[in-house]
Amino acid sequence: MKRSQRTLADGRTILYFDNDERGERAAVDTRELPPLPLIASELRHDRLTGDWVIIADHRQERTHHPSLAECPLCPSRTHNATEIPEEHFEVVIFENRFPSLPGMESDAGGIAGGRAEVVAFTQDHEGSLGNLSSEQMKLVILAWIDRCQELACLPGTRSVFVFENRGEEIGVTLHHPHGQIYAYPFLPPYQEALIRQALMARERGDSLIADTVQQEIDHGSRIIVHNDYWVAFAPYASSWPLEIQLHPVRDIKRLPELNEDEINSLAVLYPHLIRSLDGVYDKPMPYMAGWIQTPCQGSTDEHEVSRLFLRLVSNQRSIDKLKYLASSETLMGAFILDVSPESAAELVRQSLANS
Amino acid sequence: MKRSQRTLADGRTILYFDNDERGERAAVDTRELPPLPLIASELRHDRLTGDWVIIADHRQERTHHPSLAECPLCPSRTHNATEIPEEHFEVVIFENRFPSLPGMESDAGGIAGGRAEVVAFTQDHEGSLGNLSSEQMKLVILAWIDRCQELACLPGTRSVFVFENRGEEIGVTLHHPHGQIYAYPFLPPYQEALIRQALMARERGDSLIADTVQQEIDHGSRIIVHNDYWVAFAPYASSWPLEIQLHPVRDIKRLPELNEDEINSLAVLYPHLIRSLDGVYDKPMPYMAGWIQTPCQGSTDEHEVSRLFLRLVSNQRSIDKLKYLASSETLMGAFILDVSPESAAELVRQSLANS
Repeated sequence: MKRSQRTLADGRTILYFDNDERGERAAVDTRELPPLPLIASELRHDRLTGDWVIIADHRQERTHHPSLAECPLCPSRTHNATEIPEEHFEVVIFENRFPSLPGMESDAGGIAGGRAEVVAFTQDHEGSLGNLSSEQMKLVILAWIDRCQELACLPGTRSVFVFENRGEEIGVTLHHPHGQIYAYPFLPPYQEALIRQALMARERGDSLIADTVQQEIDHGSRIIVHNDYWVAFAPYASSWPLEIQLHPVRDIKRLPELNEDEINSLAVLYPHLIRSLDGVYDKPMPYMAGWIQTPCQGSTDEHEVSRLFLRLVSNQRSIDKLKYLASSETLMGAFILDVSPESAAELVRQSLANS
Repeated sequence: MKRSQRTLADGRTILYFDNDERGERAAVDTRELPPLPLIASELRHDRLTGDWVIIADHRQERTHHPSLAECPLCPSRTHNATEIPEEHFEVVIFENRFPSLPGMESDAGGIAGGRAEVVAFTQDHEGSLGNLSSEQMKLVILAWIDRCQELACLPGTRSVFVFENRGEEIGVTLHHPHGQIYAYPFLPPYQEALIRQALMARERGDSLIADTVQQEIDHGSRIIVHNDYWVAFAPYASSWPLEIQLHPVRDIKRLPELNEDEINSLAVLYPHLIRSLDGVYDKPMPYMAGWIQTPCQGSTDEHEVSRLFLRLVSNQRSIDKLKYLASSETLMGAFILDVSPESAAELVRQSLANS
């Protein structure tokens, strides 16, 4: 794998990850971009819940459903310079021009930390992660690992989150196959809760995440796939009509700790799993998928009780109906599920077998 | 106010609340309804987060966008028997035929508690809460109070939640103006967090909710309306593009504690506030609104640190764009806001002044 670092017209960093190690990545960003706005996002602490929220009101003008000819994630062509100067690429990661998180270099308001990056999975606008070859997927995983290593070391980073939003049904505004990476300057509420629960479990002598995985394996009815390196299941207490957790069999804290076998297995398994989702209702399944990792710069306790796993949820609750969050979920945090996790697991298992 | 209790064809209770105390509520439900399904919903505890989720997979077949002629919340007419047997009504509350919560009488799986009721605000299918007269709104408030008193006493009830979902944009399937009431047999996650934070604040000698309200009043820029009895503001750390909290000025724990002046003030103020939301973008604003109350059958500590207030959020982030939850919000619980609470407050203040 070859990694090439270049700079975009407005000073942002772009990284090329290539299986083909022969080429140079010399293309220059010819656009006349306005300087990056200095308006940083703002972090605010909700005293009533203890959660941080991000106010990013400069993002209202971000690119919204561009046509194919204007796709900023396609390779650049003559007369059409995109975010990616090269005419061909394999995997590319660059800093988001419309970031949600306060910029690292920002000194506005004294708020430190935070970074948002975009990951183009392929140069093929019509593709999808599920249709990546295992070689392409492996390159994506290696690129993720590269970013997790670097971002975890940035001052102020508390959590690195590698994720993908897919589908207009969940508000995706760019259709080119891509993911994102956030470096949060605070511990996100889900991780706060997870660590709180795991520390309480440890006092009882339990290993929260490992025990939960083992119970799912023992129970069996919600298991979707299980091999030497990975196990996927619909969690017992899912809160979305399709919810999947994908755990490494080993106790691993972060993506960079994956070994060669685990990476190779994931590179085959993950696109297959995603492809099978499209088979459930015979149409592209909208989903959100992201990797929970151990916090950065946290305590030894936090590190010990954390484990790497992927969460994936979809709001598709039947072939023609979406799950909406209403007052119970939004105002009270109490989720109501129309599809049992056992049914969801069976749907995905059947589709996996057929795909 | 007159309260009349009747029984629907399948045994569910229906309550009529009338300003006009002359009439009898004698109409009989003539429908041949199948018996209520015995399948109770199931509560599951997510060990990873500590939150309860509700599995209600029998609800997939619930009524979905019925035509006006089939509206189950309109008065019954010859040849069209609805959920409400009378030909005219003011405010009606009945048990939901497709409840999300385990039925009180259910003995399936040993899970106790839980109830879901529907509140028809008016017989006028084309109306909205914002267009209720203060007399009508007062009747709705008195009906709410009646239900809060009764449901809080049911065995197993931990929280009574009076709420309204409005707008197809948030997945509302019935357009007749109506709200709902849930009696949760567990403490919803938002209240769990609120009480945890309030107890921590008390150890520092602070009164979390009262202090937060006072700080909003002192700061001023997010205040929307403030009279002798009520204060509404866009919270400092809002997590939705339009978020409002409405607090009584007094320290009150539950709707039944409201006095006559507070009820009369709310009966004028609340429809006006809702009407003003429709003025923000000159079209009906989708919203979720619900009352946070002190837990039922809780500890003295829980009761002391709790306070009654209303939360209202909308996912409308501009005249033609909705806020979608994506991976950061859904998987990590980290909300990203495109509209600052200060801007949101200004939009609603301007609309209030014009409506």
